[in-house]
Formats: sequence, structure tokens, C-alpha cells
Amino acid sequence: MNLEKRALSVCLSPALLPYYSLENSIVVIIDIFRATSSICYGIANGAEAIIPVSTIDECLSYQGKGFSLAAERNGQIVDGFEFGNSPFSYTEEKVKGKTIVLTTTNGTKALKDSIGAHEIIVGSFLNLSAVCNRLQGQSKDIILLCAGWKNEFCLEDTLFAGAVVEKLKGLGMCLSDSAMAAEDLYQFAKKDLSGYLSKSSHGERLKKLNIERDIAFCLQMDVIDAVPILKAHRLVKLEDLSF
Amino acid sequence: MNLEKRALSVCLSPALLPYYSLENSIVVIIDIFRATSSICYGIANGAEAIIPVSTIDECLSYQGKGFSLAAERNGQIVDGFEFGNSPFSYTEEKVKGKTIVLTTTNGTKALKDSIGAHEIIVGSFLNLSAVCNRLQGQSKDIILLCAGWKNEFCLEDTLFAGAVVEKLKGLGMCLSDSAMAAEDLYQFAKKDLSGYLSKSSHGERLKKLNIERDIAFCLQMDVIDAVPILKAHRLVKLEDLSF
Repeated sequence: MNLEKRALSVCLSPALLPYYSLENSIVVIIDIFRATSSICYGIANGAEAIIPVSTIDECLSYQGKGFSLAAERNGQIVDGFEFGNSPFSYTEEKVKGKTIVLTTTNGTKALKDSIGAHEIIVGSFLNLSAVCNRLQGQSKDIILLCAGWKNEFCLEDTLFAGAVVEKLKGLGMCLSDSAMAAEDLYQFAKKDLSGYLSKSSHGERLKKLNIERDIAFCLQMDVIDAVPILKAHRLVKLEDLSF
Repeated sequence: MNLEKRALSVCLSPALLPYYSLENSIVVIIDIFRATSSICYGIANGAEAIIPVSTIDECLSYQGKGFSLAAERNGQIVDGFEFGNSPFSYTEEKVKGKTIVLTTTNGTKALKDSIGAHEIIVGSFLNLSAVCNRLQGQSKDIILLCAGWKNEFCLEDTLFAGAVVEKLKGLGMCLSDSAMAAEDLYQFAKKDLSGYLSKSSHGERLKKLNIERDIAFCLQMDVIDAVPILKAHRLVKLEDLSF
């Protein structure tokens, strides 16, 4: 395996994904506040599967069939749903053995946009090292896909991408300009991620939603080992022996 | 004029422009290596106008009508054209009094994509302060549009955007996440822009084209005062008295 030829790119918005070649790439979906943090936490806590869907109607179509239904739009639980994308809704007692159908503003859209990739996994600070271990053991190119906010650039997703680049760059991969920029931003911010992010527009938006506790939770590093992987349109725990 | 309410955003790729509101914005077109550096230099050197066009065929349609024709694709002069986008083709003796029709891989496309904005001006390190003076004197929102490379993120364009943010942030505008990131990257890189950029993918690409002299030229700070502005599909020197 010639690692030197692998490309490591950061796609800064789902709207830029058409400019990447998906079929030879592993895509890491990143929506730190809060979809991918909650997905990783839920899978680590024994959720059987999480089914990402694009629309609220699609989510509702699973009603009455034994699924837990979760829907978030603009940072809030959609009326009539059990829960949204707060990580505190994905604890062991709430999700163990369950299959959750989830739709969110940005994260589940990014997952859907990535269909066609060689492999799609889900990343967050919570499982940073586990994600990097998975990426290290493969030979395909890597696209770190920042879900952003309605296709706009988001600092927190880019910082996580930078944390992945920091861990992988020693492997001699070919870094895109965006990968270099993400890593430099991470170097700039990593001593105080929370302080750094509090100035961001998304940080401002989230503050208004009173979810400081969620934010602090999502910025914890390496507290779980699970890596969610998309198999047959369901996110399940990666159990690959090569991992 | 309430400056506190003005938005200052960095659009990291022309592909993200549809997510911005153009009609109430001044757009600054940024393609540091080399289209916008050369456009600024040419206008400063007395070119009567530069007409940006999208395609090589459109450029050729101006042939034999008294225009100078310039075309660049993938970093090189297109066969059969007088010149491309090297700043050394835009000296006073070469452009004074002339109208140039120009098509480039990224920069002229970004200009065309911005049509509909309240005002479109052209920025480069060469005229950084002049551009900032123009922006300071207005009340509209600001979009710093990085032309990038075929819709991908480019470090050099983002660094210039960061330099503009550094100069304007004291005005209390509302900074997007991308504006904050661009400024932090600029802080990271500004002591040695050339060294920082030499590691970028575009830097690598340009090195292969033997245009180190062009790159060094384009990284000069504040050597001209002219600001090109788009008027009736032609870039001309901004002569506004309020400037």
C-alpha cells in the first residue's frame, strides 16, 4: 500500500461535494454541533442502528413501526417528535437496542449527499482517535466532509477536520489546501476549543438555544471507541476486524 | 449609517455564492495567483478597461476590433493569444490606453458569477489598503469572494480575504465563521506569506509552471492605489469622489 499517493481533503460545505470524486473515497461526515456527535454517542451506547433521512415526512413514515423518531430543524426538536439531536437523548438507557430514524438540518443531508462513496463513516471529537484509526488502515482517498450550516462554512466542523489532519499528516498523504488550512486553524484553536468557538456565528446561534451543556459535551475528546458506518442506508457500529 | 449591522463574509468558493444575498452586497473578487493581481496592476497602469469574458470563443469574438486579447487556462497562455494573466504583461508600456478582453480559469468566472451584486470591485495584495478604504466608506454588506481553483478552496485567496478582515474588523461588523477563519489563517501566515504558501497545492502547481517571479510580484503589499470596478460589464478604475 503506497500511502504517499492518498489524498486527504477537507470539503468545507456539502455544496462543494460535487467537485470531489466520491467513488474512490472514504467520506467522514462531520456535524459537531450536534448531529454527528449524537450519532456517535448513540451507536456507542448500543443503538442497533440510526437511519438518516432527509425530510420530516420521510421520518414520520416510520411511525408506528417500532422505531424511535428524532427530528431537528434550526437547532430545535420538531414539534411532535420524541427527541432531536441533543447528545443527552442518546444515552444508553434511551437508545440501547433501538433503531432511531433521524433527520437534522445539516448532518443527515451531508450523509445523503455522500452516497456513492466507497465508505461513509461518522466523526466527532468524541471518537476522534477511533475515526483516525479506521482511516489509517485503509488505502482509499479521504474526504472530511463538513456539514456546515445550510451549506455555509462552520468553524467547529472545520476544527474537527483539522484535528483529523493533525493525526494523519505524518502518513505522508497529499493534503489539499483546505486540509492545510483546517489543520492550521486547529493548531490555533486547540488549547481552548470552547473559548475559540464561542466567538463563532454558530456558537452565537447555539447560545440562544440554551444548549451550552450540549456544546461542552460535544467538545470532549476520545470518550468513545465506536465508529458509525453507513451500511444499506443504516448507520451501524463498525465491527470490521481490520479496525 | 449603522456599521454594526453590516455583514462581512468570506465566500470560500464561487460554488457557494448562491447561498449569499448578492443584491445588497459589495463583492470583492479575489484571484491572487494571478488574475485579480494582474487586473489591478493593469488598471493602475492606465489600461482604459478590462473586459472579463467567460469563454475563449467569447474572447476571440473581439478579434480585429482594436482590443488586446488575453486568455489563460490551467495557468498557461492559450495558444494564439497575445498574453495570459501574468502581471508582467500588464505594465504601463503594454496596457496604457488599451482595452483588454480577458478570460481566465477562475477569476473571470468569479466576476461573471457575481453579476447582480450592488457593486463588484477587484482586490489583490497590490491594492489591499485601497480596497479596504473603498469598503469602509460604504454601508452595504461585504462578500469577499475567493475565486479558488475550479471551485475548490485556495489558500492564497483566503489569506487575502483574511488581510481585509484584519483591516475592517475594528468597524464592528458582523463577521461570518469564514471571515473569522480567514483572519486567523492570515495571522498565522502573514509574517512569511510566501513561505506559508509554498506548501499549498496551488503553490506546487504554479511552481511547475515556472512563475515564481509572478508569485513574488503578486504578494507585494500596497504598491498601487487603483481599485478596478465593474461598470457595464467592463472593469474600469474607480474614480468615485467618495473614495
